Amino acid sequence: MFLDEVFLKKDELLGKEITVHGWIKNHRPQKDFGFISFSDGTHFLPLQIVYDKDLKDFDTITTYKVGSAIEVKGILMKSEGSGQEIELKATEFKLLGDCPIDYPLQPKRHSNEFLRSIAYLRPRANLFQAVFRIRSLAALAIHEYFGKNGFVYFHAPIITASDCEGAGEMFQVTTLPLEKINGKVDYNKDFFGKKTSLTVSGQLQAETFATAFSKTYTFGPTFRAENSNTKVHASEFWMIEPEMAFVDLNGDMDIMEDMLKYVVKYCLEKAPDEFKFLDQFVEKGLIKKLENLITSKFTRVTHEEVITILKNADVKWEFTPEYGEDIAKEHEKYITEYFNGPVFITDWPKDIKAFYMKQNPDGKTVAAVDLEVPQAGELMGGSQREENYDKLLKRMQELKMDISELDWYLNLRKYGTCVHSGFGMGFERLLIYLTGVDNIRDVIPYPRTPNSCDF
Amino acid sequence: MFLDEVFLKKDELLGKEITVHGWIKNHRPQKDFGFISFSDGTHFLPLQIVYDKDLKDFDTITTYKVGSAIEVKGILMKSEGSGQEIELKATEFKLLGDCPIDYPLQPKRHSNEFLRSIAYLRPRANLFQAVFRIRSLAALAIHEYFGKNGFVYFHAPIITASDCEGAGEMFQVTTLPLEKINGKVDYNKDFFGKKTSLTVSGQLQAETFATAFSKTYTFGPTFRAENSNTKVHASEFWMIEPEMAFVDLNGDMDIMEDMLKYVVKYCLEKAPDEFKFLDQFVEKGLIKKLENLITSKFTRVTHEEVITILKNADVKWEFTPEYGEDIAKEHEKYITEYFNGPVFITDWPKDIKAFYMKQNPDGKTVAAVDLEVPQAGELMGGSQREENYDKLLKRMQELKMDISELDWYLNLRKYGTCVHSGFGMGFERLLIYLTGVDNIRDVIPYPRTPNSCDF
Repeated sequence: MFLDEVFLKKDELLGKEITVHGWIKNHRPQKDFGFISFSDGTHFLPLQIVYDKDLKDFDTITTYKVGSAIEVKGILMKSEGSGQEIELKATEFKLLGDCPIDYPLQPKRHSNEFLRSIAYLRPRANLFQAVFRIRSLAALAIHEYFGKNGFVYFHAPIITASDCEGAGEMFQVTTLPLEKINGKVDYNKDFFGKKTSLTVSGQLQAETFATAFSKTYTFGPTFRAENSNTKVHASEFWMIEPEMAFVDLNGDMDIMEDMLKYVVKYCLEKAPDEFKFLDQFVEKGLIKKLENLITSKFTRVTHEEVITILKNADVKWEFTPEYGEDIAKEHEKYITEYFNGPVFITDWPKDIKAFYMKQNPDGKTVAAVDLEVPQAGELMGGSQREENYDKLLKRMQELKMDISELDWYLNLRKYGTCVHSGFGMGFERLLIYLTGVDNIRDVIPYPRTPNSCDF
Repeated sequence: MFLDEVFLKKDELLGKEITVHGWIKNHRPQKDFGFISFSDGTHFLPLQIVYDKDLKDFDTITTYKVGSAIEVKGILMKSEGSGQEIELKATEFKLLGDCPIDYPLQPKRHSNEFLRSIAYLRPRANLFQAVFRIRSLAALAIHEYFGKNGFVYFHAPIITASDCEGAGEMFQVTTLPLEKINGKVDYNKDFFGKKTSLTVSGQLQAETFATAFSKTYTFGPTFRAENSNTKVHASEFWMIEPEMAFVDLNGDMDIMEDMLKYVVKYCLEKAPDEFKFLDQFVEKGLIKKLENLITSKFTRVTHEEVITILKNADVKWEFTPEYGEDIAKEHEKYITEYFNGPVFITDWPKDIKAFYMKQNPDGKTVAAVDLEVPQAGELMGGSQREENYDKLLKRMQELKMDISELDWYLNLRKYGTCVHSGFGMGFERLLIYLTGVDNIRDVIPYPRTPNSCDF
């Protein structure tokens, strides 16, 4: 029986004999009895196993080492000790897989840097039991939210022939034998007969689904070959990109807010022990922060209003806020504190935003939005998409984009065009916010960053 | 209001005024009235819109073209015509986005080949409305199944430094400037400081999660740079790879069967109109086939038993069945007919299976399983994994594998090893089976195949 079932049905199992399999997290053998902290990873809290001298192989059992896999038969009892509700009074042990004494994951505090070096073992550590279960729950919550609301899940292509968004450097994908290249590359001979790369965003293709199914979302990996060694950049990360037809920027924000609250609520409900652990050891006040998010009403202000607020603030800025320009981390922080909660900043200067965003009548701004949340800054970005063929074409020409590659995208504005909007959320950015863990390398099972591609 | 809501709440909306947005699928204007077949893609069946001469802009409305986006206000009524339950008696129209007369997606039968050439528009066609909604539902069903059963969703890395499975040719991922290469490649200068590729399977990494969380699954894209131009091969496809600790081959089969039935049942329930359409136009008897799968008990036989059955069969085989060898398509077909339902074939000759599969005591076979289903052949493959360090190491040495690259994988057998099993299911293979569509290019939104990487 797995432990998730044991804990779920603990009341009816009390006094009954059960058999469980799992690993020894900690072991405290005494002279006449012993305690084993035991887990199979299906439940965050371990099961305490108690055994005593009555067992015929008592002496052998006392030698079981941390990390070993065991099978235990026993009677489930109310625990008399503090710290746990139930415990298993063992009647029979079987050692399934021994573990040597040099097992790297001993029951003590390890640094996150060290744990990264044993990334294949760290999912067994408490921190990563919490983080990766929340990662899983958050993903399920996202699918459940969009599924319930009639969105079609769209698998955007990963290999692509165009740098659609101009969103940064891309990884090239090839089957050409590199060592045979001599200064000249014949892409006709490459696998796809052309130069191909890993996608940086599935948005443009998602728009083709939005104009067919009205409501769609992507949830898949995206890639940036950016040489940034920061705590928030990874070369491979997962993105959620919803796109909705017949929805304007206000409707877009409604969905962003609704979805985020749904996901946070879902995770808090499904992983209370994990969040208690994170609140205690990773980010004090984490649960309160997340509960506040669920109950708060998100403020909506324009970029221009934000700049005015920043300029009027009695603060000595490192970066002077300016109309028409981007805002800095310190400004994001100030604004969420100013409004005491999450803030949608809308109508950004068009020159700092992407080509596909809807141009506002003022000729200077676009119908874009960033969501800023307390303590984390920007969590999502979205926009109403330009649905006017001529305006979009003109903007692409201004930016000297290769129109021929995106004729299909432009055509969406020719064949029954409509108001439509969407947004993007970096999944790991959400996880950093949800777990309080501050390094993106610790919310991805096997992170890929410059000069690092292990396991 | 989106049409999914209209159809869901049709009883309470009857007689009420609603406003809908969507596209004209077909238009039959008459002298004094007109019919518009209308959809926003959130419901498979279109909504019929009726309008008549009472509308002040009647003449303009009669000119609305197929493909145009419109807003319609009207009263929801019981339909008097056959073919639909409800219709919208229009009181007001607004043309949102016109559509030129050369719109490629006219309301007539197009070939699938032609539709592939306009892959960005084909999601609007009935066939692809059905196929891609079922694709979405099947994905959600898979997540729901594993979520309910306590599996942790694991995002396997996409970029990898090793060809773990030896499963075929891989795409290389690089940021080296190809045109500057002159016969020598310095991977120290590549993005990750080593040679990297796109993953062919997340299984090996998933095992690290199974030995931490007991129950885990991947659901993500995988890649094969195989130069196969067939109906069932794509270079980029999605895979589901569950891995379970403390589960043997029999338990593995239990989960395979249970999951498949869950997903099929879920889809049939959530998309009855889509399946009726596919049953009528794509595969006669599709619904019956799927219903049979749900109620059938899957047979379990060994590879050896299968060969004996094949040898005893009164059939002139194109390929002679042999003990110790793989079986051919014709054999798969015969076996599912012989047992009149899905068949698990177990205990395969070790030399035709992967290195990580558990070696049986006979020294000749491994605890592997393929699931064969009527009309589709192999749908999934799985195995118990070799949990014995020495046996696994020996097998890897026999196969001259690079041990140093997989030391972490071997170490899972050193640190608390345990019986564990898993399987893999190609998502598109499932979709071909579910929809009756026979070409993998038509169940992937933007398929990638040799010499083809469009949109």
